[in-house]
Amino acid sequence: MSRSHSNDALLLHRRQLLGAAVGAAVGSASAAIAGVSLAAEDSAAVRRLGPGPSPLGERSPFAEQARVPAMGIVSFTPHENLEGTITPSDLHFERHHGGIPALDPQSHELLLHGMVERPLKFSLTDIKRFPSVTRSCFIECSGNYFPFAGEESPPHLICGLTSQSEWTGVALSTLLREAGVKPGASWIIAEGGDAPLLNRSIPLAKALDDVLLVYAQNGEAIRPAQGYPMRLLVPGWEGNTNVKWLRRLEITDAPVMSRQETSKYTEPMRDGTIRQFSFEVDARSIITAPSYPATIAKGWQEIRGIAWSGRGKIQGVEVSTDGGKTWQPARMQGPVLSKSHTRFTLPWFWDGEATELQSRAIDETGYVQPTLRDIMKERGPGSGPYHFNPITGWLVRRDGELRFSPTG
Amino acid sequence: MSRSHSNDALLLHRRQLLGAAVGAAVGSASAAIAGVSLAAEDSAAVRRLGPGPSPLGERSPFAEQARVPAMGIVSFTPHENLEGTITPSDLHFERHHGGIPALDPQSHELLLHGMVERPLKFSLTDIKRFPSVTRSCFIECSGNYFPFAGEESPPHLICGLTSQSEWTGVALSTLLREAGVKPGASWIIAEGGDAPLLNRSIPLAKALDDVLLVYAQNGEAIRPAQGYPMRLLVPGWEGNTNVKWLRRLEITDAPVMSRQETSKYTEPMRDGTIRQFSFEVDARSIITAPSYPATIAKGWQEIRGIAWSGRGKIQGVEVSTDGGKTWQPARMQGPVLSKSHTRFTLPWFWDGEATELQSRAIDETGYVQPTLRDIMKERGPGSGPYHFNPITGWLVRRDGELRFSPTG
Repeated sequence: MSRSHSNDALLLHRRQLLGAAVGAAVGSASAAIAGVSLAAEDSAAVRRLGPGPSPLGERSPFAEQARVPAMGIVSFTPHENLEGTITPSDLHFERHHGGIPALDPQSHELLLHGMVERPLKFSLTDIKRFPSVTRSCFIECSGNYFPFAGEESPPHLICGLTSQSEWTGVALSTLLREAGVKPGASWIIAEGGDAPLLNRSIPLAKALDDVLLVYAQNGEAIRPAQGYPMRLLVPGWEGNTNVKWLRRLEITDAPVMSRQETSKYTEPMRDGTIRQFSFEVDARSIITAPSYPATIAKGWQEIRGIAWSGRGKIQGVEVSTDGGKTWQPARMQGPVLSKSHTRFTLPWFWDGEATELQSRAIDETGYVQPTLRDIMKERGPGSGPYHFNPITGWLVRRDGELRFSPTG
Repeated sequence: MSRSHSNDALLLHRRQLLGAAVGAAVGSASAAIAGVSLAAEDSAAVRRLGPGPSPLGERSPFAEQARVPAMGIVSFTPHENLEGTITPSDLHFERHHGGIPALDPQSHELLLHGMVERPLKFSLTDIKRFPSVTRSCFIECSGNYFPFAGEESPPHLICGLTSQSEWTGVALSTLLREAGVKPGASWIIAEGGDAPLLNRSIPLAKALDDVLLVYAQNGEAIRPAQGYPMRLLVPGWEGNTNVKWLRRLEITDAPVMSRQETSKYTEPMRDGTIRQFSFEVDARSIITAPSYPATIAKGWQEIRGIAWSGRGKIQGVEVSTDGGKTWQPARMQGPVLSKSHTRFTLPWFWDGEATELQSRAIDETGYVQPTLRDIMKERGPGSGPYHFNPITGWLVRRDGELRFSPTG
């Protein structure tokens, strides 16, 4: 073996891993030898022709997947069943305020108007003629915390309203140059083509920075639940601003003060004031494996999870395997991209004793994911469900079962 | 507008783009003004409640997708319908030698044996306990060129046997350390659990370098057509070596000389010799838009395509809009990853005259994608269908229709 693998964690633990894996596999290793000669004998069973090529490659019946619909208005991404960073498009979380409109790209148009030199209308075909940009990015609903099953809450209830896609579209700055923004303009009102015509106000500076008008998700047309034929991608900002089924962009000099930024998506603070425009998503992380409802066995396994921040790249993730007393740096899977889910991993030897697993994310601004206690101390008890990003944990019981722990 | 966008191509062409887009949109721009007041009037039609959340987010009926099955043994990825770099898992190309086996992860086992200290057997659950690695990577069939519809060949016939996924699994080097490779070992024989028990030989040095045993694709379990529950990922090497439905890895000191590396997947050369193990995929590119069967209109649009190399990163892509007389550097969409599809783009003003669009890839080793003539000169007329990566083109007719051109 002439080369060594570059995984430091692996090298550190090599001897222990070796012992663990032999423990896992050695019971069947002698059977394995017999298995070699069985290869010819069992070939009658193995050598059955399978089905041929087909238009769509479906999932295995042994690995079916589903989002988890709830309350008639959302469905959760099942992070407990996912690896890597991409969320398959049909498992991207959904959140509607009036169901999914069935938009025909032949008749759908985007109107760009208000404080511009030239009001413009664009069809999907028009939009695709402009220079395109592709980037991976998460979208997270600002109300992404529903531990309503208590200890028996799986990851999809804790963090199932964040999902990650590779998006393709046109920079909003490109379209704004086409229309010519008038002096004094400072906001954009984005309006969707869904039943409530959901609208949100976005500062013009953000629009010119990194907002995209996207029409593709993970290589193909956006799914209807995600805004087909086009939506805004507002990197790092609360999901609600990423207006789906986009039909109108109005350039203004003030926010529209819509229902979605007054009665909803605002946060009462301890001093009696209301935090209105809290656009950026704070850094957060969750351990997706092991997690409820899994049961684990003693020995080596890998702790895995995702971390993200609306303010840029994840700088580090720390994991505690003793309920927050001590913390170890996790390995982060590269490439670490800005405003994207980042996968972290840490090898862990479970000795069979009860404990608690926790993770905390640190982003490139130095922000550290807070405890529940820290959040409550800052905001007060009536702070509501938005922008809630506490460190959470999984209690490991002596029988190997896991339970959700809000910690803090 | 306080910030300028970083797309140099856009800045270069800004005035022309502006003219083009106004040309496209200005006809409807005055209608657009009326559209603003129509927003309230047409709201009865718009404001129909749509369907609520569901377990799987299906595609729009206006944007259905399908692979194109052919010859009973393959299906092609429809690159003409894709954006970005990810191939949706159900559109990943497929190539079987005995159909798709239906493997149950409860009973499927991987045997690692031969020149090792400790033969081992692993279930899917065992494999998932090891440190995981995630990487984006293409897989390309070595016989990826089927222009059998002549001029009316769309991209899926030219390049539909390459697809890109984010894969997750365990480094093969990790498993080899567990088993302990004996001195003198130099090859690994990988065998699949499909009807023909397809097998290929892989040098041990490659296995220790970057080969992964993967169980997840684009965030979730590999699809059956891609090798569920586990396959090899041999980055940059011809698809056939990425053995699917993996059930056996035998460590040896010589290749197995299987059917798939003697009667198939070998290339007769001009001097009468046969090139047997040509593992690495050479650099290649294709323009996916515009392409047959699209029809284009005069004015600005974006030329888009993908480029890849089995030898590392794509260093550059050049595009010709005059049939190969002159070449311009295309913009490459980052992050540019090793052994991955890289999206390239170039704004192009079509003046309505007949011409031909071509692309050529250059990889980080300095290798330049060859012309058909160069390939034939090197290999001779009987060289067969493998590792065929010529520059190809799209003829643009004066009526705006496109036709495939083998060029060279």
